[in-house]
Amino acid sequence: MWDNVSAVQVRRYIWPTMNDVTTFARKNERRLLNELRAFLTIPSISTTPAHDRDCRRAAEWLAEHLRHLGCPTVELLSSDTHPVVWAKGPRVPGRPNVLVYGHYDVQPPDPLDEWESPPFQPTIRGNNIYARGATDDKGQVFSIVKAFEAVANGGRPPINVAFLIEGQEESGSGVLFDLLAKRRDLVDVDAVLVADMPYYAPGWPAIEVGLRGLCYAEITVRTLKSDLHSGLYGGVAPNAHEALVHTLANLKAPSGRIKIPGLYEAVARPSTKERDAWAKLPFSEHKFRTGEVGSKALTGLQRYSPLERIWGLPTLDIHGIMGGFTGEGAKTVIPAAATAKVSLRLVPNQKAKTVLRQLAKAAKAAAPPFADVKVEFIHGADPVVLDVTAPPFALIAQAFREVEGREPVPIRSGGSIPVVPALGAGGAPVVMAGIGLPDDRLHAPNEKIGVDQYLKGVRVFGRFFQLMGDLK
Amino acid sequence: MWDNVSAVQVRRYIWPTMNDVTTFARKNERRLLNELRAFLTIPSISTTPAHDRDCRRAAEWLAEHLRHLGCPTVELLSSDTHPVVWAKGPRVPGRPNVLVYGHYDVQPPDPLDEWESPPFQPTIRGNNIYARGATDDKGQVFSIVKAFEAVANGGRPPINVAFLIEGQEESGSGVLFDLLAKRRDLVDVDAVLVADMPYYAPGWPAIEVGLRGLCYAEITVRTLKSDLHSGLYGGVAPNAHEALVHTLANLKAPSGRIKIPGLYEAVARPSTKERDAWAKLPFSEHKFRTGEVGSKALTGLQRYSPLERIWGLPTLDIHGIMGGFTGEGAKTVIPAAATAKVSLRLVPNQKAKTVLRQLAKAAKAAAPPFADVKVEFIHGADPVVLDVTAPPFALIAQAFREVEGREPVPIRSGGSIPVVPALGAGGAPVVMAGIGLPDDRLHAPNEKIGVDQYLKGVRVFGRFFQLMGDLK
Repeated sequence: MWDNVSAVQVRRYIWPTMNDVTTFARKNERRLLNELRAFLTIPSISTTPAHDRDCRRAAEWLAEHLRHLGCPTVELLSSDTHPVVWAKGPRVPGRPNVLVYGHYDVQPPDPLDEWESPPFQPTIRGNNIYARGATDDKGQVFSIVKAFEAVANGGRPPINVAFLIEGQEESGSGVLFDLLAKRRDLVDVDAVLVADMPYYAPGWPAIEVGLRGLCYAEITVRTLKSDLHSGLYGGVAPNAHEALVHTLANLKAPSGRIKIPGLYEAVARPSTKERDAWAKLPFSEHKFRTGEVGSKALTGLQRYSPLERIWGLPTLDIHGIMGGFTGEGAKTVIPAAATAKVSLRLVPNQKAKTVLRQLAKAAKAAAPPFADVKVEFIHGADPVVLDVTAPPFALIAQAFREVEGREPVPIRSGGSIPVVPALGAGGAPVVMAGIGLPDDRLHAPNEKIGVDQYLKGVRVFGRFFQLMGDLK
Repeated sequence: MWDNVSAVQVRRYIWPTMNDVTTFARKNERRLLNELRAFLTIPSISTTPAHDRDCRRAAEWLAEHLRHLGCPTVELLSSDTHPVVWAKGPRVPGRPNVLVYGHYDVQPPDPLDEWESPPFQPTIRGNNIYARGATDDKGQVFSIVKAFEAVANGGRPPINVAFLIEGQEESGSGVLFDLLAKRRDLVDVDAVLVADMPYYAPGWPAIEVGLRGLCYAEITVRTLKSDLHSGLYGGVAPNAHEALVHTLANLKAPSGRIKIPGLYEAVARPSTKERDAWAKLPFSEHKFRTGEVGSKALTGLQRYSPLERIWGLPTLDIHGIMGGFTGEGAKTVIPAAATAKVSLRLVPNQKAKTVLRQLAKAAKAAAPPFADVKVEFIHGADPVVLDVTAPPFALIAQAFREVEGREPVPIRSGGSIPVVPALGAGGAPVVMAGIGLPDDRLHAPNEKIGVDQYLKGVRVFGRFFQLMGDLK
């Protein structure tokens, strides 16, 4: 897959070699861990305004750190509460420019009671650091920051590195989108590096060829002017939760087929070549189901492989249902209104805006006639497929080969990074290759990152910077 | 219906006449309202432990008030947090004994933002007092307390009155059930008076012939060991909310038919005579739907009349759905578990315990095979049908006739008062006749009681006490 590495012209340099970044990581292990833990203590949850100040604090912490590493330019851009951290390393004339993207914001930690250690008190157990954001994305982006430190070479790094680290990846990237629309110069680089994704499996590094998109919405169903007593009106008054339940049940069959008219029409199946590559990946459905997923069955369209269901097909998930009475004890209310948070993951060539329209129309058609239905867009992202023939893909592959002893495998991600298309808008190849592991439990309780993986990240990305510096 | 009043032997007495209770209510109107408002300010919500102290406070307030009215015996029984207020008026030898049942606890006020005035700051607007508990049941039971004051006659009331006012009607009546199981003497009386229900319509007083029962439960569906990320696992990981949605959709058809095997088998239809009486009641489906219910349609089994659907048929309602992410913004979680609060209203001859078993079995059968289903009982009540030929029914009918100028109509209630069977266990007729109105919005925002209705209650129940005193 990455054999165009042979086509890359490499020149010898005085920059640190593979051994140097490895030595750096080994010698500084304790400090590297402590610095990451300090970053992880900040509860920079971007999905709720209650944590606006914490997001600001995380941005300031990161900016200060990058200044400390010798970046002559460090700025907080575009927002008081969720600024984009923008930093440039020392200028190295004639060398390629690499832009590093990442995010310092994290998901909410609930349900809190399922955490074995508090989500914002990073705790090492076994070979892992447990904390919200450990893998998504603080741990991963910080391993690149430390890789930059490893190759910084007393203010003369092998390459021009810039950092663009945002605080709204988990809540729509609004500030960064606005910034990139105005500042096309920021993405006018030779490569973009994104490490917000896992290995394919332990020992199996991966390069992302595609990302699913997202269409997150709230479906609200109203059946009554106001809540009623189920004794006095039960039997005649339409219950909003019941109407919502039938609406949602009509939107997706138990088989996993999404019953939104037109939804599958835009779906482009992965090429036979890509599916053949997936088929060669080590994958035990039993181990995946019992170990990673933890369920009695894998659901979804059974005529496609599990990997294709996650990487190459759209899905519809319900995230939560609001309304009525959910407190302790009993309240015999007939709810007047009920809201479901739902999202669809999208694949090439679906468009988030089109899917929103299709969802809204389908939800209205799926609801009982006596229910008023409103569909509100929360946020979204279009799906991405990359052309991975450019030299930086070969160089990250070489870095992984040197550190991990194995060729990275070409995969897609079922997740979404909404801003990726905008990062590539300057024509630079977007290299998506992370050092998390599939069982890192991002967005879930007990999120973690492997201590080894974090240190491997320092080495892999350091080596990538070195190799990119050698690129003619 | 109530013509056996002619069979009641009445003797003349020196007790106040109809004019006396009317005069009392008119002369003391302002004070009667202020006292009720003081009672309504106490947020005695029994469904959540956060308000335990308020429940205690409401009980103490009521006990103090009954002492002040000259009750020689006033006790708080059986619980520190939700005691039963037990009071006896002055002993009047040779006179019948009437036991007054009511409750001082109230439903939670949420959703708070739909109240036009704060739920525990009783506010008079137009001819109504708005507050949580205004009609259910503080306003109604307090009108009986004031009726007792009206006929108290300087310590020589026309009758032996006892009060049994509990603090857990909205949360299962556990304390009172235990008390009544031990103290059968409490219900060894000549009549029980319960005013926890409305008129049939404004100007149309009613006597309750039956109550629906209740089976309140939580259905929990689990599909995963823990929450997962919908990007990384969406398409293969079973979503607990989706499984719950399909389970609930399978339990009740959009037609309103409850799909719980065996559920309808025990249902005894009301007699033709009773249904004929219902058919004669003034009822405009259009007005009921648009005014009271506030919906685009009346749901449920269309081959039965709306009144029969509410009074004579079981129903299943969803009250709320818990789990996943319901905060502000977006979290792309696949929930591992989801719980629905549901309840069935029951009719003769269903039994709450049998229905719980049927529900549990049906929920398990209705869920997808990969979901673990748990059904937890919250509380319940068996349905009630009364024989209304005993003299006290004729006397309450006479009291209503005198005050309202109209014969009360025989109706049932769709609601449940779990403790009613235990109140009648001593063989006393349980007279259920209240002075609320159907649009009082009990259990909902902006609950109210009409000022007129409250004062009519003082007169009707005062007159009832007088007439009962005349009973040989």
